[in-house]
Amino acid sequence: MQGRMNQSLPRLTQARAPLTQSITATNEAGEQEAVSIPAERSLTVYVDKREIVTLMTLGVNPELLVLGYLLNQKLVKSSGDIESITVDWDALEEGGAAAVKTRNGIEAIEERTARRVVTTGCGQGSIFGGLLDDLDSIKLPDARLSQAALFEILSLIRQQDTTYKSSGSVHGCALFRVDGASARATLLHHVEDVGRHNALDTLAGWMSLQATQDKASTSADLVLYTTGRLTSEMVIKSAQMGVPFVVSRSGITQMGFDVATRLGLGTIGRALNTRYLCYTGAGKIER
Amino acid sequence: MQGRMNQSLPRLTQARAPLTQSITATNEAGEQEAVSIPAERSLTVYVDKREIVTLMTLGVNPELLVLGYLLNQKLVKSSGDIESITVDWDALEEGGAAAVKTRNGIEAIEERTARRVVTTGCGQGSIFGGLLDDLDSIKLPDARLSQAALFEILSLIRQQDTTYKSSGSVHGCALFRVDGASARATLLHHVEDVGRHNALDTLAGWMSLQATQDKASTSADLVLYTTGRLTSEMVIKSAQMGVPFVVSRSGITQMGFDVATRLGLGTIGRALNTRYLCYTGAGKIER
Repeated sequence: MQGRMNQSLPRLTQARAPLTQSITATNEAGEQEAVSIPAERSLTVYVDKREIVTLMTLGVNPELLVLGYLLNQKLVKSSGDIESITVDWDALEEGGAAAVKTRNGIEAIEERTARRVVTTGCGQGSIFGGLLDDLDSIKLPDARLSQAALFEILSLIRQQDTTYKSSGSVHGCALFRVDGASARATLLHHVEDVGRHNALDTLAGWMSLQATQDKASTSADLVLYTTGRLTSEMVIKSAQMGVPFVVSRSGITQMGFDVATRLGLGTIGRALNTRYLCYTGAGKIER
Repeated sequence: MQGRMNQSLPRLTQARAPLTQSITATNEAGEQEAVSIPAERSLTVYVDKREIVTLMTLGVNPELLVLGYLLNQKLVKSSGDIESITVDWDALEEGGAAAVKTRNGIEAIEERTARRVVTTGCGQGSIFGGLLDDLDSIKLPDARLSQAALFEILSLIRQQDTTYKSSGSVHGCALFRVDGASARATLLHHVEDVGRHNALDTLAGWMSLQATQDKASTSADLVLYTTGRLTSEMVIKSAQMGVPFVVSRSGITQMGFDVATRLGLGTIGRALNTRYLCYTGAGKIER
């Protein structure tokens, strides 16, 4: 049965491809400059040989991206539902292919991939319908976040050596664990992609593998950082991942604000160095 | 028949809704600040009573957004194919609805809305499959752009009074007409939305109405400005709109670069004040 917990980890390939390319651009003085630009490749996802979507991606962790995509779209319940994900960047004339093999199939996959919502998010801006429907079933852990830990998160983000820094034009997401007693933050995983939803999905894929290995882990001490805006879809996906705080360099939209309020999720934007604006959950921030 | 030119303009409602909302946020000093955030609302599109997509939008020009979306998805060939677009923000419990009535239906609409590509773009990051397929059928006008006109475009953009300036977190697109003889640029239309693809689609909708009214107009002297990155989808949509130059405040991705090269479209990024990087078509810039 699809919902049954399965302790086995899926088998994943480790397809790699160059993340940047060097091109020559011409500046305003007519001088040629070598410029590094981020890769952007298409990855067509087949689930049990059925084509479901084509993702445009930087291609850092394509297997985790596909896993997280399926989880965040609620097409699978846990990584245990997946037997294997095989990515081949040379599979198709127009790009790569990810072949997903499930253990027990996906019930009613035709219907569940039919409705679509085209969202505001950068990148993977399309969610299958119905995500909003069961918002009220999400129960986030009651969590608090110290300002000192928040500032450490922003400091750790600054220190990342990123594709963004070398080529720009990508979005980043990172997951942190905060120790409440010491108010220290640890970077667990950092992902970049041409779209921030891809980055977030990749993090979800990464998380699902950790959860399978470590049953004792809780999400109450997790904090998500994103370079992108706090739109409704970003807030919903964070909540689905069980993360109680989302921090962004950017601002929030009205629906992001409304959904975060309804879910009791803490949202912090315009976060840089030692400055921020807490939009929702200000009472959970310890100063 | 669907492809036949039709001189009639579609009837459009003029549904308006507030673009920003004021909320109270808490800053790092624990002080409360009034913050203006952009609206983000759902707009479900029905074509001849068939639901095809839900767009998340700021809601500036919903009718033009829907028109441009249908055009850029190649579901209709011109605004003459549309009899009316009726937007009602209170139609559904979860948001607004746009009822599109076509003059002659859309052939094979089921098949044509089935394949999907989830792209890197902010916002309306989903294009129905097949857009890449007929890239080679696009013939862009042979155009040149003077640096003086480019700098004037950047200056005009700075002077816009925008939702971005008041609330941030939105993307903007603008269409300019450049007079080659005087090297002056004129702002034709400026649109903002929570997703930059929505902004671009809205511009496409606006353009299609002008083209219907003014048959003599050409696109060779048009320049598109976007705050967003030059991804493959942005480049393809610009080319579909017949615009030979795209200018961005941001950078370019590899596929955006590849597609622009193939199409002969001029791409200019990192454009601010009197600085820029021309990625493709540098020979068409007159300094």
